[in-house]
Amino acid sequence: MKIVVDAMGSDRYPQPDVGGAVQAAREYGVEIVLVGIKDVVEPELAKHDLAGLCISTVHASQIIEMKEHPAAAVKSKKDASMVVAMQMLKQGQVDAYVSAGNSGGVLASALLYLGRIRGVKRPALCSIFPTRTGVCFLLDIGANADCKPEYLLQFAIMGSVYAERVMGIANPRVAIVSNGEEEGKGNALVQESVPLLKASGLNFVGNAEGKDIPGGVADVVVTDGFTGNVIVKLTEGVAGFLKDIIKTEIKRRPLAVVGGALAKAAFDQVGKRTDWREYGGGPLLGVDGVVIVGHGRSDAYAIKNAIRVAKEVVEQNTLPAIREDIARHLTSISEE
Amino acid sequence: MKIVVDAMGSDRYPQPDVGGAVQAAREYGVEIVLVGIKDVVEPELAKHDLAGLCISTVHASQIIEMKEHPAAAVKSKKDASMVVAMQMLKQGQVDAYVSAGNSGGVLASALLYLGRIRGVKRPALCSIFPTRTGVCFLLDIGANADCKPEYLLQFAIMGSVYAERVMGIANPRVAIVSNGEEEGKGNALVQESVPLLKASGLNFVGNAEGKDIPGGVADVVVTDGFTGNVIVKLTEGVAGFLKDIIKTEIKRRPLAVVGGALAKAAFDQVGKRTDWREYGGGPLLGVDGVVIVGHGRSDAYAIKNAIRVAKEVVEQNTLPAIREDIARHLTSISEE
Repeated sequence: MKIVVDAMGSDRYPQPDVGGAVQAAREYGVEIVLVGIKDVVEPELAKHDLAGLCISTVHASQIIEMKEHPAAAVKSKKDASMVVAMQMLKQGQVDAYVSAGNSGGVLASALLYLGRIRGVKRPALCSIFPTRTGVCFLLDIGANADCKPEYLLQFAIMGSVYAERVMGIANPRVAIVSNGEEEGKGNALVQESVPLLKASGLNFVGNAEGKDIPGGVADVVVTDGFTGNVIVKLTEGVAGFLKDIIKTEIKRRPLAVVGGALAKAAFDQVGKRTDWREYGGGPLLGVDGVVIVGHGRSDAYAIKNAIRVAKEVVEQNTLPAIREDIARHLTSISEE
Repeated sequence: MKIVVDAMGSDRYPQPDVGGAVQAAREYGVEIVLVGIKDVVEPELAKHDLAGLCISTVHASQIIEMKEHPAAAVKSKKDASMVVAMQMLKQGQVDAYVSAGNSGGVLASALLYLGRIRGVKRPALCSIFPTRTGVCFLLDIGANADCKPEYLLQFAIMGSVYAERVMGIANPRVAIVSNGEEEGKGNALVQESVPLLKASGLNFVGNAEGKDIPGGVADVVVTDGFTGNVIVKLTEGVAGFLKDIIKTEIKRRPLAVVGGALAKAAFDQVGKRTDWREYGGGPLLGVDGVVIVGHGRSDAYAIKNAIRVAKEVVEQNTLPAIREDIARHLTSISEE
């Protein structure tokens, strides 16, 4: 399997991107193509022991920065690393794509070069979200700030395929984010989406309130990209805030400092259970190719794991399965 | 000052409601009227030492339960405790109102009996949200699942008055929740609201991402009631989840158990800094009266603090100030 990695993606490129690619090549036995400015990528690659690994580089002279307007940048910078890498995916030179760059840029490149899966109205950015019982699959987390009910239904279909294939969850429970668990609660979008989800044949379990998402009430949680983005970033903010005030309050008390040291193994395990880096990135579902979007602040460990996710998505034939399920759904609608 | 308290409001009524009222009467020197079923309220009240306190009771034969449909229940149960208490506020028999009951029911009662402040399009439920630097004032957290830009502008005006008067923050910074800090990010509602906020004369500081809210980038954070509700409940869910896994991981390790015990004072302080009970409830702004909505799961401490909030809102002449600022804003629009 061959995976293309944007070497200029992460905030601190190329170190995390190249380092993660090297680790992934060794650990998962995948073939890697690194795309980026040759004079930057090759010296970074040379720092690693590459014996027995299959890693090549492709030159791309431009970079799309985090602050740039995604669609405009993708159109004007045709030789940007994330764009060149996407073209390779389109041309079938690689099986999957990983970038920790400007996620709007990845989305725009994917729409421009890969296009959408036949029948898919909108692609969705997805996240693996930690819960009490494990993880859930949350989408959309930012591709579509305003959604229509039909989009949310398609997110549920695509998310269910992903949960079943990649996460190994049979008959995944699907919920929709709402401002109350009771049926009838919700904004106009939720109220119009619920009947579609109920009639979908998916394992729809109803509304999920904010507290239910980490509570683990569903395997697939659908929402519009505005709310989903707030959910992911707020969770990060709340967790960071609590971690910081726990540290601050411990440091203020000599006895607590000793206590904190004794409890270190426990804290480390908490950190591990809630570490977004374990998944590294989320898939962009609905576009006609395997695209994984990493976090900008990825380190090499996160990039390595994002590459693992890409590999699993390919191995589980997720893309053909989504194509089939979307086609089946469209047929069922046209037959009604 | 005289405050009416719904004695049948909280999930575990009447114990928290009555207990909190007694504590508030003692601690803040306020006069309390408890409304509820006499045979339930009076025996509960009799358990307390009432020497020197000014607490009376008013009988109301019905209760609106948490699961009831708010508007329907308020119309059919005219002798419900939260309704009778609202009528007392309307008639000027009391200065402020506190209920930890069905928040939709409190909202419906307030709209039915008090009505809105002249010019206010929609009332907003508000919450005091803990941040790195203290707290911020978040609204709407659930009164209006679907909002228009003009509502968000009015929330910003009312929230700024509240932050200035009750929280003592001069020239409070106002932000709007969005899916990106950069200008131009947002769903349609946010993109249409931003120009109104910029032109409002308020201290508008721009978009706040999910992580920025606990980060403390603003004193007043406005959003639609759907997103606000998700924010409040998700925060609760994430904090509860982290607390539970920290406990679980500590309990698994004998050394960590010792460490946890030594760090107890630090953990207690973290708990205090993030304890919603310190505020007990949030105001319902935009209705023509001082109404504080407590959490259903309030204990006596939370109810006591909700009564403190009510007292502060009255003392700071918040309601007349909101009336003035809304009127001034409407005048400025009509002059344009």
